[in-house]
Amino acid sequence: MEYLKNIKSPEDVKKLDTSQLNDLSAEIRETLIDTVSRTGGHMSSNLGVVELTVAIHKMFDCPKDTIIFDVGHQAYTHKLLTGRYEKFSLLRCADGISGFPNPSESECDPFYSGHSGTSVSAAIGVAAANSILGNNGYVVAVVGDGSMTNGLIYEALNNANVSGKRLIVILNDNKMSISQNVGSLARYLAVIRSKSKYLRTKTRVEKVLNHIPLVGKSISKCVYRMKTSLKQRLYKSNLFEDMGFAYMGPIDGHNIELLCDALETAKLVTKPVLLHVNTVKGKGYDFAEKSPTMFHGISKFDIDTGEPLPSSATFSKEFGDAMCSFASNDRKICAITAAMSVGTGLQNFEKNYPKRFFDVGIAEEHAVVFAQGLSKQGLRPVFAVYSTFLQRCFDQLIHDGALQKRSLVIAADRAGFVGEDGETHQGIFDVAMMNGIPDITVYSPSTYEELNKFLYKSIYESKNVSVVRYPRGSEGQIPEDFKPSFASYDVYGDKDSDIALVTYGRIFSNACIARDMLGKDGIKIKIIKLNRIKPVDINAVNEALSCEKVFFFEEGIRSSGVGEKFASLLLENGYKGEYDLTAVNDCFVPQASVEKQLETYGLDCDGMYRKILGVEKIG
Amino acid sequence: MEYLKNIKSPEDVKKLDTSQLNDLSAEIRETLIDTVSRTGGHMSSNLGVVELTVAIHKMFDCPKDTIIFDVGHQAYTHKLLTGRYEKFSLLRCADGISGFPNPSESECDPFYSGHSGTSVSAAIGVAAANSILGNNGYVVAVVGDGSMTNGLIYEALNNANVSGKRLIVILNDNKMSISQNVGSLARYLAVIRSKSKYLRTKTRVEKVLNHIPLVGKSISKCVYRMKTSLKQRLYKSNLFEDMGFAYMGPIDGHNIELLCDALETAKLVTKPVLLHVNTVKGKGYDFAEKSPTMFHGISKFDIDTGEPLPSSATFSKEFGDAMCSFASNDRKICAITAAMSVGTGLQNFEKNYPKRFFDVGIAEEHAVVFAQGLSKQGLRPVFAVYSTFLQRCFDQLIHDGALQKRSLVIAADRAGFVGEDGETHQGIFDVAMMNGIPDITVYSPSTYEELNKFLYKSIYESKNVSVVRYPRGSEGQIPEDFKPSFASYDVYGDKDSDIALVTYGRIFSNACIARDMLGKDGIKIKIIKLNRIKPVDINAVNEALSCEKVFFFEEGIRSSGVGEKFASLLLENGYKGEYDLTAVNDCFVPQASVEKQLETYGLDCDGMYRKILGVEKIG
Repeated sequence: MEYLKNIKSPEDVKKLDTSQLNDLSAEIRETLIDTVSRTGGHMSSNLGVVELTVAIHKMFDCPKDTIIFDVGHQAYTHKLLTGRYEKFSLLRCADGISGFPNPSESECDPFYSGHSGTSVSAAIGVAAANSILGNNGYVVAVVGDGSMTNGLIYEALNNANVSGKRLIVILNDNKMSISQNVGSLARYLAVIRSKSKYLRTKTRVEKVLNHIPLVGKSISKCVYRMKTSLKQRLYKSNLFEDMGFAYMGPIDGHNIELLCDALETAKLVTKPVLLHVNTVKGKGYDFAEKSPTMFHGISKFDIDTGEPLPSSATFSKEFGDAMCSFASNDRKICAITAAMSVGTGLQNFEKNYPKRFFDVGIAEEHAVVFAQGLSKQGLRPVFAVYSTFLQRCFDQLIHDGALQKRSLVIAADRAGFVGEDGETHQGIFDVAMMNGIPDITVYSPSTYEELNKFLYKSIYESKNVSVVRYPRGSEGQIPEDFKPSFASYDVYGDKDSDIALVTYGRIFSNACIARDMLGKDGIKIKIIKLNRIKPVDINAVNEALSCEKVFFFEEGIRSSGVGEKFASLLLENGYKGEYDLTAVNDCFVPQASVEKQLETYGLDCDGMYRKILGVEKIG
Repeated sequence: MEYLKNIKSPEDVKKLDTSQLNDLSAEIRETLIDTVSRTGGHMSSNLGVVELTVAIHKMFDCPKDTIIFDVGHQAYTHKLLTGRYEKFSLLRCADGISGFPNPSESECDPFYSGHSGTSVSAAIGVAAANSILGNNGYVVAVVGDGSMTNGLIYEALNNANVSGKRLIVILNDNKMSISQNVGSLARYLAVIRSKSKYLRTKTRVEKVLNHIPLVGKSISKCVYRMKTSLKQRLYKSNLFEDMGFAYMGPIDGHNIELLCDALETAKLVTKPVLLHVNTVKGKGYDFAEKSPTMFHGISKFDIDTGEPLPSSATFSKEFGDAMCSFASNDRKICAITAAMSVGTGLQNFEKNYPKRFFDVGIAEEHAVVFAQGLSKQGLRPVFAVYSTFLQRCFDQLIHDGALQKRSLVIAADRAGFVGEDGETHQGIFDVAMMNGIPDITVYSPSTYEELNKFLYKSIYESKNVSVVRYPRGSEGQIPEDFKPSFASYDVYGDKDSDIALVTYGRIFSNACIARDMLGKDGIKIKIIKLNRIKPVDINAVNEALSCEKVFFFEEGIRSSGVGEKFASLLLENGYKGEYDLTAVNDCFVPQASVEKQLETYGLDCDGMYRKILGVEKIG
């Protein structure tokens, strides 16, 4: 680590020559592989942009120039070069370094960024402001080709004209979204890539044109016209140019010299530039180059074998298995994913039922409307999506979902705390979001078995939008004497107790342990476990109505969550007792382990125990 | 009305020849102008697609073939031809004909549709399902060029490859969004349009190429290569072809014969087709052709003069005036609209401060992220948007709004009931939506003066996202003895009363009248008027805590609204009294006048009066 340890700020990058920058890149790559093998994180995409990021910091002055990484999957090298090397071993750890751009860590991170397709919009905003204010900084947005499947990017490209002349969009084309890239644009980029000697060809054809002999006057005129038109076509010949950009590329994204040259040229262009850079996802780590999807977002793994440390069953896997099982009996079942086939557990469905499997790219809005189209014709579509990305289609859930009054199933994975991905990815907003949508039914299973049952019920018994939401990871421990009813709620524990604990989802497991702990202190409680959280069954409310104290625990945002609604229902039905709601108070939750996050908000068994005991005011 | 009155279904359209179809079109146009002058509605866009819609019904079999009108601004002719002529005079009236496609009216309307950019996604879904199920119906989506600025359309175009071969997207290019179209795509379409003899030119150039004399062998080879490449470019030369469509057009959208020919050809193509049709917005009504924006969505008007019937001041106008006034004193104020410059009252701002005015097209997601970019550099952006379209940027309000911890102002117009536009456009979901977002502040002024003050406060005193929401139309009557505090809440009426009426926004006016009515019956009430509805001031809750009965009235969806939150806060703070919440119960609200809608949900003064009197259980 001759160079990297001495890089305290981007200024230090500028002191190195090309050969030294190549050595620096090798050191960065080693650090990335070593750290991510221990912390987990986004491996493939970060390995792909090492040289590109080094070149950017060589050629631009951050933070005077604004560098924005789309999604932020690609920002690790940027972090290492902007004063965060020392702390980098704490990547994705509590109080360590976030896995995404984070303005609270460095002024070189202009925005928090974890959702796809936002970079160009933000960049245009900064550039337009610079233009109004007379600032002369450059604005650089680095966008993966996967993000190009997202509508927001398109809305931004369509507005780039307001950005003035110092906007450079770098298309980091690794031919992959999170998994294989999809759609027409992917094919289109492949066409551009295949013309790798694009600029050279242009020049050659032009030369030839200038040497075509002219025979006769009318032919001459026609050929002249044709030449002009051909030149125009060659110079204004791709989609990005159609969108008003000067297009440069494609160039090798692992050649620092070439990258620096291109960026130097881009700085001189007096309109928005799109620089097309080819990179290899997973570059420099054999296992990641061979299996870039597996190494996209990965848990801790063994460096020498590339094998992930063993993991157990997960809700995602159980969901995938259930979908395959349903599909084998019913040819109307379809599965839709927005670039998350593996993450949502649908890889076997994709393999077994390719005609009924739709990966739409990072296009959650389209996914919902498209699913409604399938449903209209009588198919049974299930859209599997992470809770945090479901936020992207709120309007579609209303306007193209609930309003249409047809069956449509959403499987919302990663609901609740997600741990190390931090504030941009928490699945704590979906319940509040869905609570405000008419006619939607939401189930929150605590176990695999419940997931299976409620998924089945959603597919076959619902006449409108149904959502089944379940957490990242595996099911918790459930007492053997708990007999699930698969109805809209269950009551467990001491049914005549004056104290009710109401909760739902994963943390029912914690509630059961808390009940045991309280039992040892001689305190008996009744647990009301909600299975269907929207609409709340009024009988579940009635179960609590007779209690003197009701404690509600919710792994989600407090405001507009189920806990507030439960309170309102109690009050409207004449409840006169005490009510206490523990949830995630109006805030964003940074990276840490899920266990730590549950503890922080008083949602672990200890927190529940102490809250009911009155030992501690949490939440 | 020789023809129109006899069209009972699309089958009847097929019986007419071209000349008769032209006469039919004239009758339709007359009916549209006459009806909309009396009911209000979308004039310009509907006048533009008369011949196109007639041609579609001549060439396709609806509902076996699926016809989807994007946004639905263009569906009036479709309604007249699908059995709704008799009832058409009740356009946009309660229990009449909806102003948008509505499956409950006719099986020829496959989807409810009022938000832009959804048609192609839905069409692809239907087409993909047809392909899976072996149905052989065609799917036709009619999209205005304005919708092409929206990201959802792009996500759909990128996925058209899964739709099979019977998908036809008709681009209805009237060179306008709602007002003048914006962005690169608009310029791009202008370029295509200017090549109006596109197909003919292609053929000519090809002929010329085939006659270029070849001189010498190496030149010959080069020219041959060049010819091939030029041919490819000519045949695969525009954005839609890059997206995988067969492109046809542009053709005259008012020539029925040409349209029928083109549709016949499109039916034969074995891949998705994009048919580019040029139309004139407002066609056939002089005043609308000259001022298409004014006649986009219009209230009742005088047919002979084209003048709208006189209207008074509105919240939108007051907002626009306030923005101009702020901007004249502060060069950092910027205004952003998503194709709603006139609707949101920003036309004077646009005129006076063009450099700080941004119309981003129908791109609400981009608008928020872009605004955040402006804010990052120290400007003061205000994004004015209708409540219903704010739904489009829920994720951006979280991820690119609140999380970034910077000042950003949203002016949410058309909040609450919107009247005649019906279920797709109600502004009743924004409060529930924003309630679930951390750190956002929401103001709900009841008067113009409050709008002004809270807008000022949002721009200059907030360090995060602030939303000022206000209704369509004008302020209600407020008692002279009400002295607004411009604080987070006001108390008005009999402050020692045991009965509290809590409300916010426009219907405070109704509450004051209800209070007078109750007073005449000897019942005294205290009105707690919330000005800042998120976060709710705990002191406002304390004002209600001592009451025996609390009645909450909310012009918005009940679930996750302020009323539920207020109940939760009361209960958590030990309230033991009665609580009654009147709001829009989990449902969608069809077209009617705003007065009628308020009455239906018990939110008019009479409903409030009777609820408190205990005469009637409403809500």
